[in-house]
Amino acid sequence: MKELGNAGITSPLGFKANGIACGLKKSGKPDLALIYSLVPATAAAVFTKNAVKAAHIMVDAKHLQSGEAQAIIVNSGNANCCTGARGIKDAQLVVTELAASLEVLPSRCLMASTGVIGKYLKTEKILAAIPQLIKGLGFDGSDAANQAIMTTDKFPKQATVRFLMGKKTVTIAAMAKGAGMICPDMATMLCFVTTDANISLPGLRKALKLAVDASFNCISVDGEMSTNDSVFVLANGLAENKLIGTSGPGFEQFCAGLTQVCLKLAKMVVEDGEGATKVIEMRVEGAATQAQAKQAALRLANSPLIKTMIAGENPNWGRIPAAIGAAGVKMNPDKLSVELQGKTVYQNSVSKVTDLDILVPLLRSKDIVIRVKLFSGKYSQTMWASDLTHEYITINTEYN
Amino acid sequence: MKELGNAGITSPLGFKANGIACGLKKSGKPDLALIYSLVPATAAAVFTKNAVKAAHIMVDAKHLQSGEAQAIIVNSGNANCCTGARGIKDAQLVVTELAASLEVLPSRCLMASTGVIGKYLKTEKILAAIPQLIKGLGFDGSDAANQAIMTTDKFPKQATVRFLMGKKTVTIAAMAKGAGMICPDMATMLCFVTTDANISLPGLRKALKLAVDASFNCISVDGEMSTNDSVFVLANGLAENKLIGTSGPGFEQFCAGLTQVCLKLAKMVVEDGEGATKVIEMRVEGAATQAQAKQAALRLANSPLIKTMIAGENPNWGRIPAAIGAAGVKMNPDKLSVELQGKTVYQNSVSKVTDLDILVPLLRSKDIVIRVKLFSGKYSQTMWASDLTHEYITINTEYN
Repeated sequence: MKELGNAGITSPLGFKANGIACGLKKSGKPDLALIYSLVPATAAAVFTKNAVKAAHIMVDAKHLQSGEAQAIIVNSGNANCCTGARGIKDAQLVVTELAASLEVLPSRCLMASTGVIGKYLKTEKILAAIPQLIKGLGFDGSDAANQAIMTTDKFPKQATVRFLMGKKTVTIAAMAKGAGMICPDMATMLCFVTTDANISLPGLRKALKLAVDASFNCISVDGEMSTNDSVFVLANGLAENKLIGTSGPGFEQFCAGLTQVCLKLAKMVVEDGEGATKVIEMRVEGAATQAQAKQAALRLANSPLIKTMIAGENPNWGRIPAAIGAAGVKMNPDKLSVELQGKTVYQNSVSKVTDLDILVPLLRSKDIVIRVKLFSGKYSQTMWASDLTHEYITINTEYN
Repeated sequence: MKELGNAGITSPLGFKANGIACGLKKSGKPDLALIYSLVPATAAAVFTKNAVKAAHIMVDAKHLQSGEAQAIIVNSGNANCCTGARGIKDAQLVVTELAASLEVLPSRCLMASTGVIGKYLKTEKILAAIPQLIKGLGFDGSDAANQAIMTTDKFPKQATVRFLMGKKTVTIAAMAKGAGMICPDMATMLCFVTTDANISLPGLRKALKLAVDASFNCISVDGEMSTNDSVFVLANGLAENKLIGTSGPGFEQFCAGLTQVCLKLAKMVVEDGEGATKVIEMRVEGAATQAQAKQAALRLANSPLIKTMIAGENPNWGRIPAAIGAAGVKMNPDKLSVELQGKTVYQNSVSKVTDLDILVPLLRSKDIVIRVKLFSGKYSQTMWASDLTHEYITINTEYN
């Protein structure tokens, strides 16, 4: 599976993109993006499990019942969430106008929003900008689109893989915006995947769920779940590979590619987390069930004491057994082992390393690995988390 | 129920206490306390649910099987946790020596520890200090004991209530140390309740569980659960009231008094939480079940985005519906209402207040009340939490 360095969401065949400023962001920075497939694409999405959902998700969920889409319009600067019936109407208005201008069925147009909560969308600004947005669509438009979905992201996030299926070349590309929002209210994660793979709707839905479970569902910046989190995939079939179903070698290959792209972006989201200075890989092994492995890893990933310990390069490793003990999972506390950067610091109820001259240098790396063995079974799970710093507090206490 | 202002754990009849420095704390501050009842008392305790438990809990759990105790020795400066078989031996050694010096049965002596994790207890320092500790026991020793259990607590925490049962006066007193530890590794909460009430062992156990559920189990500083958290109660019967059982008006009265004392201390622990500048009361109403009400309130209490919002007096109230939506409980998102300081800011999917001139002054108070109605049933739950500040990060990133 070949990874393409600087390619973006227009690398698969038949995708154009654009990004412009329409005036939603006070800063005047780009805030409106469009992703467009020349032909109708098989489409699927995974949305936030938050019971309070943004308006765009209501519209998308309905449109995605058909399993087909051709365009996704994305605005930053306003989440269009907690906006009730008017918010849904506003999203429908944008999508309807886009469909008319693109001359495609309204049900083939999707929308995503990210930004401040509880304020109505200035639809007139979006509607006025749609002609320019469409006019500027290009095969080289991925960077512009990527800029327009960013909020306080410190860097754009994209990933692309290319591989052979039989004699056909298939490309999967994606861009994401991540967990960094200041004026807006919370960390919304949006991800858009484009691919020229020829895949059935059930196959695409299944692959997306598997890929998201193994990537975006394995990261945590602060344990918060956004009202707008969404991952979309459009598969337009232009690679002309043999149709991929819901199993078999072709499905496995596609799924591996999709997971690789999503996992790369997920780690970039953590790296760009609010105030993050380090990426912590939390690996739990020897759990009694897969669910318990995940529960334990999530407990580590959301522990403020572990996250501040890593931020401060402070080797108080006792926080790790204490957090895992509080995870509510089956474990053998008498055997429990804890590794920091590959070094066992605690095992069989005995401290293995307390020497600060050994411990402190271990934590100077930007990438930290914590490994915990529960001795209760054979299941394991890895999560990625950011550290917790003063900058996180600054970002989230200030109101701009 | 009369609250006594400055009284401490020696206010009930027949209790003496003392606190001294034995050299466990580098600072030379008091670090060893003793609580002593002149006669054997009915005894119960509630311990952390953390699977990784401190050594003292192993010893206490065994001794408490008899339901009787006469003395509790408490050291600060070392948690004696993650210290394996040697840690348990060390705790047993201290308790055995204390029993011999006090001339009481070893099974009637209990121990509690708070401090750094993963280091062996310097038992020789404790053993050498026991004679002086016992010699100094006094009916006016509650302040000395309170000083000796503190770690980074900014103020001592004690509460006392007195009431009539029939013609007899019953007193319940307690002291606690809370969620502030720097050199040590985590926030350990210890609480010691003394009472001269005459109560059966089943009655005492039941009342303690109810009181802890309604107080210490309803607070959160950072969502972490300590390896050492313990609440002890000794009831020596010297008030000579009619024996309290497990139900009836006498039980209700005792339970109300015990809960009042525990709740007062629990709120003081939050007020003194690491870096805390505000106490936030999180009230969830209209939940489908009691468990869901608690789950939702806990989600609010542990939300870093809500806690930083309150710290910064930043009125981004959209974080509240977003957090509650992520709680995984049954709710009606179309009706959901959110109140801030008694003012409805969001209801029926519509923002009610966005004017910063109204919102910002609401948050200037030290005591903040957030109220959320789920419209799914009749159950409610209140939790108390601290805010999340730069000071929390400073305390927990630094290694001392």
